[in-house]
Amino acid sequence: MVDILHRVGVKSSVAEVYAAVTTIDGLAGWWTTDTQGEAGEVGGVIGFKFVPGGFDMKVVELVPDKRVLWQVVEGPEEWIGTHISWDLEQVDEWAIIHFKHEGWKEQVEFMAHCSTKWASFLLSLKSLIETTKGAPSPDDVSISNWH
Amino acid sequence: MVDILHRVGVKSSVAEVYAAVTTIDGLAGWWTTDTQGEAGEVGGVIGFKFVPGGFDMKVVELVPDKRVLWQVVEGPEEWIGTHISWDLEQVDEWAIIHFKHEGWKEQVEFMAHCSTKWASFLLSLKSLIETTKGAPSPDDVSISNWH
Repeated sequence: MVDILHRVGVKSSVAEVYAAVTTIDGLAGWWTTDTQGEAGEVGGVIGFKFVPGGFDMKVVELVPDKRVLWQVVEGPEEWIGTHISWDLEQVDEWAIIHFKHEGWKEQVEFMAHCSTKWASFLLSLKSLIETTKGAPSPDDVSISNWH
Repeated sequence: MVDILHRVGVKSSVAEVYAAVTTIDGLAGWWTTDTQGEAGEVGGVIGFKFVPGGFDMKVVELVPDKRVLWQVVEGPEEWIGTHISWDLEQVDEWAIIHFKHEGWKEQVEFMAHCSTKWASFLLSLKSLIETTKGAPSPDDVSISNWH
Protein backbone atom coordinates (compact mmCIF):
# COMPACT_ATOMS: atom_id res chain seq x y z
CA MET A 1 0.00 0.00 0.00
CA VAL A 2 1.21 3.43 -0.93
CA ASP A 3 0.10 6.81 0.35
CA ILE A 4 0.15 10.43 -0.71
CA LEU A 5 0.90 12.81 2.14
CA HIS A 6 0.73 16.58 2.36
CA ARG A 7 0.95 19.16 5.11
CA VAL A 8 -0.42 22.65 4.61
CA GLY A 9 -0.99 25.40 7.16
CA VAL A 10 -3.87 27.83 6.82
CA LYS A 11 -3.80 31.06 8.79
CA SER A 12 -7.21 30.47 10.31
CA SER A 13 -9.05 28.43 12.88
CA VAL A 14 -9.42 24.69 12.35
CA ALA A 15 -13.17 25.35 12.38
CA GLU A 16 -12.85 27.27 9.10
CA VAL A 17 -10.89 24.44 7.49
CA TYR A 18 -13.34 21.89 8.84
CA ALA A 19 -16.18 23.85 7.24
CA ALA A 20 -14.29 23.96 3.93
CA VAL A 21 -14.20 20.15 3.78
CA THR A 22 -17.58 19.30 5.30
CA THR A 23 -19.92 21.65 3.42
CA ILE A 24 -20.79 21.61 -0.28
CA ASP A 25 -20.17 25.36 -0.56
CA GLY A 26 -16.77 25.01 1.06
CA LEU A 27 -15.73 22.08 -1.15
CA ALA A 28 -16.98 23.85 -4.28
CA GLY A 29 -14.80 26.80 -3.39
CA TRP A 30 -11.48 25.02 -3.66
CA TRP A 31 -11.84 21.65 -5.40
CA THR A 32 -14.50 21.65 -8.06
CA THR A 33 -17.45 23.98 -8.54
CA ASP A 34 -19.52 20.92 -9.52
CA THR A 35 -19.84 19.37 -6.05
CA GLN A 36 -23.06 17.85 -4.77
CA GLY A 37 -24.33 15.59 -2.01
CA GLU A 38 -24.11 15.30 1.75
CA ALA A 39 -20.75 16.33 3.10
CA GLY A 40 -21.70 16.97 6.70
CA GLU A 41 -23.01 13.61 7.86
CA VAL A 42 -21.48 10.21 8.31
CA GLY A 43 -22.76 7.92 5.56
CA GLY A 44 -23.40 10.84 3.23
CA VAL A 45 -22.02 10.63 -0.30
CA ILE A 46 -20.36 13.57 -2.02
CA GLY A 47 -20.10 13.71 -5.81
CA PHE A 48 -17.22 15.71 -7.24
CA LYS A 49 -17.30 16.27 -11.00
CA PHE A 50 -14.45 17.48 -13.18
CA VAL A 51 -14.15 17.94 -16.90
CA PRO A 52 -12.66 14.47 -17.50
CA GLY A 53 -14.72 12.63 -14.86
CA GLY A 54 -15.42 12.55 -11.16
CA PHE A 55 -15.28 10.89 -7.78
CA ASP A 56 -17.91 9.86 -5.26
CA MET A 57 -16.76 9.85 -1.67
CA LYS A 58 -18.57 8.31 1.28
CA VAL A 59 -18.15 10.23 4.52
CA VAL A 60 -16.87 7.62 6.98
CA GLU A 61 -15.84 9.69 9.96
CA LEU A 62 -16.46 13.22 11.21
CA VAL A 63 -14.93 14.66 14.37
CA PRO A 64 -15.77 18.37 14.38
CA ASP A 65 -12.70 20.58 13.90
CA LYS A 66 -10.43 17.52 14.17
CA ARG A 67 -10.86 14.83 11.56
CA VAL A 68 -12.69 13.95 8.34
CA LEU A 69 -12.38 10.56 6.63
CA TRP A 70 -13.75 9.75 3.19
CA GLN A 71 -13.81 6.49 1.28
CA VAL A 72 -13.80 6.61 -2.50
CA VAL A 73 -16.81 4.62 -3.71
CA GLU A 74 -16.92 5.68 -7.38
CA GLY A 75 -14.30 7.05 -9.76
CA PRO A 76 -11.10 5.97 -11.50
CA GLU A 77 -10.23 2.36 -10.76
CA GLU A 78 -7.04 3.28 -8.91
CA TRP A 79 -9.03 5.45 -6.50
CA ILE A 80 -11.81 3.04 -5.59
CA GLY A 81 -11.44 1.78 -2.04
CA THR A 82 -8.75 4.29 -1.16
CA HIS A 83 -9.28 6.64 1.78
CA ILE A 84 -8.74 10.36 2.13
CA SER A 85 -8.18 11.68 5.62
CA TRP A 86 -8.02 15.21 6.94
CA ASP A 87 -6.53 15.62 10.41
CA LEU A 88 -6.67 19.17 11.68
CA GLU A 89 -4.55 20.72 14.38
CA GLN A 90 -4.53 24.28 15.69
CA VAL A 91 -0.97 25.55 16.20
CA ASP A 92 -1.13 29.16 17.38
CA GLU A 93 -2.80 31.12 14.58
CA TRP A 94 -2.35 28.23 12.11
CA ALA A 95 -4.78 25.49 11.20
CA ILE A 96 -2.48 22.67 10.18
CA ILE A 97 -3.92 20.17 7.70
CA HIS A 98 -2.42 16.69 7.87
CA PHE A 99 -3.70 15.25 4.62
CA LYS A 100 -3.45 11.64 3.49
CA HIS A 101 -4.77 9.83 0.44
CA GLU A 102 -3.99 6.30 1.44
CA GLY A 103 -4.28 2.77 0.18
CA TRP A 104 -3.05 3.07 -3.41
CA LYS A 105 -2.15 -0.37 -4.69
CA GLU A 106 0.90 0.75 -6.63
CA GLN A 107 3.08 3.76 -7.34
CA VAL A 108 1.58 4.34 -10.77
CA GLU A 109 2.08 7.44 -12.90
CA PHE A 110 -1.48 8.53 -12.14
CA MET A 111 -0.66 8.50 -8.43
CA ALA A 112 2.26 10.88 -9.02
CA HIS A 113 -0.09 13.15 -10.97
CA CYS A 114 -2.67 13.07 -8.18
CA SER A 115 0.00 13.83 -5.58
CA THR A 116 0.99 17.05 -7.36
CA LYS A 117 -2.64 17.89 -8.07
CA TRP A 118 -3.63 17.41 -4.41
CA ALA A 119 -0.87 19.83 -3.36
CA SER A 120 -2.23 22.35 -5.77
CA PHE A 121 -5.83 21.92 -4.54
CA LEU A 122 -4.72 22.15 -0.90
CA LEU A 123 -3.11 25.48 -1.71
CA SER A 124 -6.41 26.44 -3.36
CA LEU A 125 -8.19 25.62 -0.09
CA LYS A 126 -5.59 27.68 1.83
CA SER A 127 -6.12 30.58 -0.53
CA LEU A 128 -9.92 30.27 -0.35
CA ILE A 129 -9.83 30.73 3.41
CA GLU A 130 -7.05 33.29 3.60
CA THR A 131 -8.10 35.47 0.66
CA THR A 132 -11.67 34.26 -0.10
CA LYS A 133 -10.42 33.17 -3.54
CA GLY A 134 -9.81 29.51 -4.31
CA ALA A 135 -8.93 27.93 -7.65
CA PRO A 136 -11.43 25.08 -8.03
CA SER A 137 -11.95 23.14 -11.25
CA PRO A 138 -12.60 24.08 -14.04
CA ASP A 139 -10.32 27.06 -13.30
CA ASP A 140 -7.74 25.06 -11.41
CA VAL A 141 -4.01 25.40 -11.94
CA SER A 142 -2.83 23.34 -14.91
CA ILE A 143 0.13 21.18 -13.95
CA SER A 144 0.67 19.15 -17.15
CA ASN A 145 -0.85 17.66 -20.32
CA TRP A 146 -3.17 15.73 -17.98
CA HIS A 147 -4.29 19.13 -16.69
CA MET B 1 10.71 2.74 2.69
CA VAL B 2 8.37 5.51 1.70
CA ASP B 3 8.51 7.75 -1.34
CA ILE B 4 7.23 11.12 -2.49
CA LEU B 5 6.05 11.10 -6.10
CA HIS B 6 5.06 13.92 -8.39
CA ARG B 7 4.32 14.30 -12.09
CA VAL B 8 4.50 17.69 -13.77
CA GLY B 9 4.44 18.55 -17.47
CA VAL B 10 6.37 21.50 -18.83
CA LYS B 11 5.47 22.87 -22.23
CA SER B 12 9.05 22.63 -23.50
CA SER B 13 11.68 20.19 -24.66
CA VAL B 14 13.12 17.72 -22.16
CA ALA B 15 16.47 19.38 -22.91
CA GLU B 16 15.24 22.58 -21.25
CA VAL B 17 14.10 20.71 -18.16
CA TYR B 18 17.36 18.76 -18.08
CA ALA B 19 19.28 22.06 -18.15
CA ALA B 20 17.12 23.40 -15.29
CA VAL B 21 18.21 20.51 -13.02
CA THR B 22 21.83 20.07 -14.14
CA THR B 23 23.12 23.66 -14.14
CA ILE B 24 23.59 25.97 -11.17
CA ASP B 25 21.83 28.81 -12.98
CA GLY B 26 18.88 26.58 -13.77
CA LEU B 27 18.56 25.23 -10.21
CA ALA B 28 18.90 28.74 -8.74
CA GLY B 29 16.00 29.83 -10.93
CA TRP B 30 13.41 27.58 -9.37
CA TRP B 31 14.61 26.06 -6.08
CA THR B 32 16.87 28.40 -4.16
CA THR B 33 18.87 31.36 -5.36
CA ASP B 34 21.69 30.22 -3.04
CA THR B 35 22.82 27.18 -5.05
CA GLN B 36 26.47 26.29 -5.57
CA GLY B 37 28.65 23.40 -6.71
CA GLU B 38 28.91 21.02 -9.62
CA ALA B 39 25.52 20.00 -10.97
CA GLY B 40 26.58 18.78 -14.39
CA GLU B 41 28.99 15.98 -13.59
CA VAL B 42 28.65 12.63 -11.89
CA GLY B 43 30.31 12.81 -8.48
CA GLY B 44 29.75 16.55 -8.25
CA VAL B 45 28.18 17.93 -5.10
CA ILE B 46 25.52 20.64 -5.17
CA GLY B 47 24.87 22.79 -2.10
CA PHE B 48 21.37 24.22 -1.76
CA LYS B 49 20.90 26.79 1.00
CA PHE B 50 17.61 28.06 2.39
CA VAL B 51 16.84 30.41 5.24
CA PRO B 52 16.44 27.62 7.83
CA GLY B 53 19.21 25.34 6.46
CA GLY B 54 20.26 23.45 3.40
CA PHE B 55 20.98 20.22 1.57
CA ASP B 56 24.05 18.84 -0.18
CA MET B 57 23.30 16.46 -3.04
CA LYS B 58 25.78 14.18 -4.77
CA VAL B 59 25.10 13.74 -8.47
CA VAL B 60 24.95 9.95 -8.91
CA GLU B 61 23.62 9.54 -12.43
CA LEU B 62 23.22 11.75 -15.49
CA VAL B 63 21.66 10.60 -18.74
CA PRO B 64 21.29 13.71 -20.91
CA ASP B 65 17.66 14.73 -21.45
CA LYS B 66 16.49 11.51 -19.75
CA ARG B 67 17.49 11.06 -16.14
CA VAL B 68 19.16 12.74 -13.18
CA LEU B 69 19.76 11.01 -9.85
CA TRP B 70 20.96 12.73 -6.69
CA GLN B 71 21.85 11.32 -3.30
CA VAL B 72 21.42 13.53 -0.25
CA VAL B 73 24.76 13.61 1.58
CA GLU B 74 24.18 16.50 3.99
CA GLY B 75 21.03 18.09 5.44
CA PRO B 76 18.18 17.21 7.80
CA GLU B 77 18.57 13.75 9.31
CA GLU B 78 15.43 12.45 7.56
CA TRP B 79 16.88 13.38 4.15
CA ILE B 80 20.36 11.89 4.49
CA GLY B 81 20.74 8.81 2.30
CA THR B 82 17.50 9.42 0.44
CA HIS B 83 17.57 9.74 -3.35
CA ILE B 84 15.94 12.23 -5.65
CA SER B 85 15.34 11.11 -9.21
CA TRP B 86 14.21 13.03 -12.27
CA ASP B 87 13.03 10.95 -15.21
CA LEU B 88 12.18 13.01 -18.27
CA GLU B 89 9.95 12.02 -21.14
CA GLN B 90 8.96 14.02 -24.21
CA VAL B 91 5.25 13.60 -24.99
CA ASP B 92 4.41 15.76 -28.00
CA GLU B 93 5.09 19.35 -26.94
CA TRP B 94 5.30 18.39 -23.26
CA ALA B 95 8.37 17.53 -21.22
CA ILE B 96 6.98 15.23 -18.56
CA ILE B 97 8.86 15.15 -15.27
CA HIS B 98 8.54 11.91 -13.31
CA PHE B 99 9.87 13.03 -9.96
CA LYS B 100 10.67 10.81 -6.99
CA HIS B 101 12.16 11.52 -3.59
CA GLU B 102 12.65 8.01 -2.35
CA GLY B 103 13.87 6.09 0.63
CA TRP B 104 12.27 7.96 3.52
CA LYS B 105 12.36 5.74 6.61
CA GLU B 106 8.93 6.74 7.89
CA GLN B 107 5.85 8.78 6.99
CA VAL B 108 6.76 11.61 9.34
CA GLU B 109 5.10 15.04 9.40
CA PHE B 110 8.22 16.55 7.82
CA MET B 111 7.81 14.20 4.86
CA ALA B 112 4.26 15.45 4.29
CA HIS B 113 5.58 19.03 4.40
CA CYS B 114 8.32 18.20 1.90
CA SER B 115 5.83 16.50 -0.40
CA THR B 116 3.71 19.66 -0.65
CA LYS B 117 6.82 21.83 -0.88
CA TRP B 118 8.27 19.72 -3.74
CA ALA B 119 5.01 20.13 -5.68
CA SER B 120 5.28 23.86 -5.24
CA PHE B 121 8.93 23.94 -6.37
CA LEU B 122 8.16 21.73 -9.37
CA LEU B 123 5.52 24.25 -10.41
CA SER B 124 8.18 26.93 -9.91
CA LEU B 125 10.44 25.03 -12.33
CA LYS B 126 7.55 24.74 -14.80
CA SER B 127 6.92 28.46 -14.54
CA LEU B 128 10.62 29.29 -14.89
CA ILE B 129 10.77 27.51 -18.23
CA GLU B 130 7.35 28.51 -19.53
CA THR B 131 7.38 32.16 -18.43
CA THR B 132 11.08 32.74 -17.48
CA LYS B 133 9.89 33.45 -13.93
CA GLY B 134 10.38 30.87 -11.18
CA ALA B 135 9.69 31.28 -7.47
CA PRO B 136 12.90 30.06 -5.80
CA SER B 137 13.68 30.54 -2.11
CA PRO B 138 13.73 33.04 -0.41
CA ASP B 139 10.74 34.21 -2.46
CA ASP B 140 9.09 30.80 -2.66
CA VAL B 141 5.40 30.20 -2.04
CA SER B 142 4.64 29.91 1.67
CA ILE B 143 2.60 26.78 2.37
CA SER B 144 2.40 26.85 6.20
CA ASN B 145 3.98 27.95 9.51
CA TRP B 146 7.02 25.89 8.42
CA HIS B 147 7.17 28.14 5.36
